[in-house]
Amino acid sequence: MQFGKIAIVGAGNVAYTLCKILKHKEINPFCVYVRNPEKAKEVHQDLQIEVVSEYKKVLESDLVIIAVNDDSISEVVSHFVDYKGLAVHVSGTKSSDLLNRVERHGVFYPLQTMSKNREISFDDTPLLIYANSEDDFEKLRDFAKIFSDKVLVCDDERRKAIHLSAVFVSNFTDLMLGIGDKLLKINDLPLEIMKPLVTETVEKCFTDSPDNALTGPARRADFATIEAHEKMLSVYPKEREIYKLLTDYIVEKYHENEKL
Amino acid sequence: MQFGKIAIVGAGNVAYTLCKILKHKEINPFCVYVRNPEKAKEVHQDLQIEVVSEYKKVLESDLVIIAVNDDSISEVVSHFVDYKGLAVHVSGTKSSDLLNRVERHGVFYPLQTMSKNREISFDDTPLLIYANSEDDFEKLRDFAKIFSDKVLVCDDERRKAIHLSAVFVSNFTDLMLGIGDKLLKINDLPLEIMKPLVTETVEKCFTDSPDNALTGPARRADFATIEAHEKMLSVYPKEREIYKLLTDYIVEKYHENEKL
Repeated sequence: MQFGKIAIVGAGNVAYTLCKILKHKEINPFCVYVRNPEKAKEVHQDLQIEVVSEYKKVLESDLVIIAVNDDSISEVVSHFVDYKGLAVHVSGTKSSDLLNRVERHGVFYPLQTMSKNREISFDDTPLLIYANSEDDFEKLRDFAKIFSDKVLVCDDERRKAIHLSAVFVSNFTDLMLGIGDKLLKINDLPLEIMKPLVTETVEKCFTDSPDNALTGPARRADFATIEAHEKMLSVYPKEREIYKLLTDYIVEKYHENEKL
Repeated sequence: MQFGKIAIVGAGNVAYTLCKILKHKEINPFCVYVRNPEKAKEVHQDLQIEVVSEYKKVLESDLVIIAVNDDSISEVVSHFVDYKGLAVHVSGTKSSDLLNRVERHGVFYPLQTMSKNREISFDDTPLLIYANSEDDFEKLRDFAKIFSDKVLVCDDERRKAIHLSAVFVSNFTDLMLGIGDKLLKINDLPLEIMKPLVTETVEKCFTDSPDNALTGPARRADFATIEAHEKMLSVYPKEREIYKLLTDYIVEKYHENEKL
């Protein structure tokens, strides 16, 4: 443990999850800053950590994890100009430069989606870390190892590429399940029936590769089925547009010379 | 067990998987028809089932599962005009009408992706069945229960809607992981690092709903990040087009009145 007093700023899912894991590892956060004390009570009360709504105590910490939404980071940083500890944000997409006004700064980005009502094991969640000094790198790495076995040292550029990739594999995958759900609901069917298929698809992608695991009408250039699907989607023009674009992408990739 | 002699037509992943599960359940398929005997040896030899390349023996069966690709079903059916047993195909997308030339016919569609090199438990795989007589419905339902606890009676229209939904939740999810993989590879990173995130995303979609589980820049209308992502994708115009279309879809759905 390289940091004595650990402060966390934020009342969102990331702040809450980090607090919860620290408590679980029997490390007591020094304090949690939450701008709105009412909200603080609501979200952090079950964790029995001191919640503050002024920065005075936070500034006594050795490490502050700024776990607020991207657009609020700059405002929070303005309170840490004379801070002597290490300040890190948890954003996948914001530069570490955003914390330049703090002498010792870095990034602590957990590659995971977090909700308050979900228990997450962090053991295999990659933690992407960065610090602007060698010394803090070491300390932050040791700290990160409390949370996860997978700590990756990662500069801004790589972290941003990983974040962009995460939008495809997480947010857009969610969207595909959402459209699938919509198409099932019309027929009074629950998304649940897709679980074995989706689980196996994802498992195959990781065990083998997404390229090798790909099946379906576009992959086998089955234009009769594609046409039938587009016809079925004619009442859902937005979903049809998505179907067409993704189908074209697959057909072009695997059947460049056979395209209609 | 309602069918004495079970024949299977095909040498692909579905035919192989069905044979394997039957063997595993200690039911010995009567025979497997494979057009190309060389290919048959290759794919079915480990299962110790009689493989034939003429239809004579197949026609003695009580149930034939036509597990060939969609475009070959009609050709196969032409050999079964006088067949006395029940003939079913395994397609998600082809009408049961395709088997009209056989008096007793139906559909046996497993909602799963299959590969020869993967062990699949069928216990929770939905099996969508249809038969053109009440009597065969009963028999086929009992037969399907050998494979799975989830047997759904399903007419052509519903099955086709489920198949279309499956393209989104399975094929297009695979594609999203494929694009994510491509973006990581450029930075010498393995897709593996995304596994906890993807697993948690999928789990959340099924436990809660894809709508509630959705996060990311489009969901929170974070246009600064969206713009940065589009810029990063400027060297990958096809992926950028997909990013834009899916982002627009999400922004329109959740932030109709805030759109730029």
